[in-house]
Amino acid sequence: GDNLQVKRAKWVVPSSQMAKNTHNPIRQIVDNMKIEPNPEKKMIALSIGDPTVFGNLEPPHEVEEAVIDCIHSKKSNGYAPSIGYETARAAIAKYYTRPGAPLEAKDVIFGSGCSGALDLCISVLANPGQNILVPRPGFSLYKTLAESIGVEIRHYNLLPERCWEIDLDHLQSLVNENTAAIVVNNPSNPCGSVFTKEHIQDILQVAERLRLPIVADEIYADMVFSGHSFHFMASLTTEVPILSCGGLAKRYIVPGWRVGWVLIHDRHGAFEAEVRSGLLRLSQRILGPNTLIQAAVPRILENTPQSFYQETMALVQRNAELFFNGVSKIPGLSPIMPCGAMYMMVGIDIDKFPAFSSDVEFTQHLVSEQSVFCLPASCFQYPNFFRVVLTLPEEMVSEACERIQEFCTQHYMAESKANGAF
Amino acid sequence: GDNLQVKRAKWVVPSSQMAKNTHNPIRQIVDNMKIEPNPEKKMIALSIGDPTVFGNLEPPHEVEEAVIDCIHSKKSNGYAPSIGYETARAAIAKYYTRPGAPLEAKDVIFGSGCSGALDLCISVLANPGQNILVPRPGFSLYKTLAESIGVEIRHYNLLPERCWEIDLDHLQSLVNENTAAIVVNNPSNPCGSVFTKEHIQDILQVAERLRLPIVADEIYADMVFSGHSFHFMASLTTEVPILSCGGLAKRYIVPGWRVGWVLIHDRHGAFEAEVRSGLLRLSQRILGPNTLIQAAVPRILENTPQSFYQETMALVQRNAELFFNGVSKIPGLSPIMPCGAMYMMVGIDIDKFPAFSSDVEFTQHLVSEQSVFCLPASCFQYPNFFRVVLTLPEEMVSEACERIQEFCTQHYMAESKANGAF
Ligand SMILES: Cc1ncc(COP(=O)(O)O)c(C=O)c1O
Ligand SMILES: Cc1ncc(COP(=O)(O)O)c(C=O)c1O
Repeated sequence: GDNLQVKRAKWVVPSSQMAKNTHNPIRQIVDNMKIEPNPEKKMIALSIGDPTVFGNLEPPHEVEEAVIDCIHSKKSNGYAPSIGYETARAAIAKYYTRPGAPLEAKDVIFGSGCSGALDLCISVLANPGQNILVPRPGFSLYKTLAESIGVEIRHYNLLPERCWEIDLDHLQSLVNENTAAIVVNNPSNPCGSVFTKEHIQDILQVAERLRLPIVADEIYADMVFSGHSFHFMASLTTEVPILSCGGLAKRYIVPGWRVGWVLIHDRHGAFEAEVRSGLLRLSQRILGPNTLIQAAVPRILENTPQSFYQETMALVQRNAELFFNGVSKIPGLSPIMPCGAMYMMVGIDIDKFPAFSSDVEFTQHLVSEQSVFCLPASCFQYPNFFRVVLTLPEEMVSEACERIQEFCTQHYMAESKANGAF
Repeated sequence: GDNLQVKRAKWVVPSSQMAKNTHNPIRQIVDNMKIEPNPEKKMIALSIGDPTVFGNLEPPHEVEEAVIDCIHSKKSNGYAPSIGYETARAAIAKYYTRPGAPLEAKDVIFGSGCSGALDLCISVLANPGQNILVPRPGFSLYKTLAESIGVEIRHYNLLPERCWEIDLDHLQSLVNENTAAIVVNNPSNPCGSVFTKEHIQDILQVAERLRLPIVADEIYADMVFSGHSFHFMASLTTEVPILSCGGLAKRYIVPGWRVGWVLIHDRHGAFEAEVRSGLLRLSQRILGPNTLIQAAVPRILENTPQSFYQETMALVQRNAELFFNGVSKIPGLSPIMPCGAMYMMVGIDIDKFPAFSSDVEFTQHLVSEQSVFCLPASCFQYPNFFRVVLTLPEEMVSEACERIQEFCTQHYMAESKANGAF
């Protein structure tokens, strides 16, 4: 009996190193925060990059109808090829073909969301012990996916004072013989920045010199404010092989649908020997995303009216401007005006808020006092900033700004700790 | 110029070891077969484990309606928690709770198909260099997933003469200090076998003695012929911790929808220290399957009439009996009657077919001469058998049998090569 007890107690099943190495920095930080809104104020959650949460944005009804028709047709319930339906891949290829960056169906591989597409790209390019370069501040999934398979990440800096352009000198200083790829995210989460043609050309020159392929996370493709232009990286190079990741999540307001893709932009056959077939093989592990949505993709791309995209981005832009103006006036905060995507970064002059030692503490108290939840940019490896999501209803913006202002005014000390009174 | 050409030519991007190690044995074999049907006979493809391909089986309309309602509600477009919606997990927990194997929402983790669920389980339990035990004949995805992450697979034998029960002595002979788990598939693809309660208890005793957790691939749960009973492995043990994998694919005739799950059946806290949290962490890599289907799960489970399940299995059983009777009469073939799932294995007395050196050649010629495509069981690491899918329309079965009979009669030599005339 006793012996059995001991044996039983010892039957602890260990988990793999992969499981232990899989971390989501956002969850790690947020789950350790005390998120307790002020019961007297209604919560305004500006923390989640999910355009559906406020209920003001919905997918175009053409998109819903396309999926419903696919259900009724009963022709899209079976297994698709693991890389996706040929017709859906052809539609994506046609839609995203650009001068200098032609695509055919064979260049498109479906994944489970843009997350799944990024997983395919990182997994096909990098071995354990190798490294990939990723932006700081940047989307934390790159870290999650890479470290999960033993690939090291090295953060290159983005420059807030230069519209979050890449510090290319810093990037180059990180490269060694184990560097497998550069991940570039444009338009950016969390910055909302949109790279100019010239800056993309500079990045491409560096990649070409270093002979490094690029993983372009272009999930926010075409989501730019008026006056700005989006350029696919692949459309600006004849030399650098690029894997571009995209998906339906953000542009069509359906992140839960989990449909993404890799666009293979080969140059001079660099991907032909191994990477293309490697992507095909890796796609067989999971067999692609939901076929009802895949089957609807041609109609989704074709039937969504331009006005839908324009209205979404007009809302985001208006909110960005309102927020920027509102927050600019607040002592101790420095917003950086975005040009696209659906986010804005706000710098915290943390020395001026002696009650808080970090962006995490600052945002935690902003919740408990004002019921406004902004994501501390430590989640993006970028302390002393917070990120706001810009897809909220316009009328909530001024309320949010007022509350943030009240909060900051209460806690701001003109005489900072650092430049103290003595 | 020339120099640049050389440099360019050298920019070959290598793929990772993971990509190189990811193989789908079925694709490797089938893609190398010459699949050229006889133009004078209409193709009967009994090769793909996809119940939608013949058009005679469809998902219950309750299922389609549930998904359409979720689209109309507009409440299921956003990100779900990475392990899945709480309500959907609670519904699955309730539906699959059995005496002795209770489940709560926290014990259910969604994956991208049962494939995704298996990937989670293998990834959480085994490290590179470790091994897992898998059935032979067996579903080849275990090999694809394991080898992809550097985990070795060791095949334990199933015994055709004992309804494909596990050769437990052989299984035990494979175990070493690097063995991380036993994968058990019941009901079985490709065998169509259904383990008795007694056999499952025997397997569990071995697992308990060896202190090995079980990954139970129970995607064909409840899909058994009349007169047979299905038992979840977890319902028969108070000692062995089990991860049970399932999904909507087969039972609801919607394999393309990619919704599967892991059911965590912990025993004495064996999974509590690491495996449960490891599964949660791994789920964050991809963020779960399509939310429209997830949201429909409670209604799918609740509203599908019992008659739907019964009619599906009645068709499979009738086809199994017709096929079995038809093929039993054919010289050189030995079918093994299944008890569930949707497959039957047929042995080929290959020595009696001197024109063919293997099941691959046999099935290839069966296509080119008779336009009947059966999967060579080499795809399941089991030469000299082929697998037929049993979800076809009843009227096609006799046609298929007749053609197989004609083929075998033409090629059968009573005097085998081995027991030759001299
Ligand atoms: C930059 C970036 N890439 C990828 C993703 C993931 O997209 P999906 O939801 O399609 O997996 C996100 C989601 O927030 C993102 O911000
Ligand atoms: C035994 C077995 N497990 C798992 C799967 C994969 O199921 P899913 O399509 O849900 O990924 C299959 C599909 O054929 C199977 O036969």
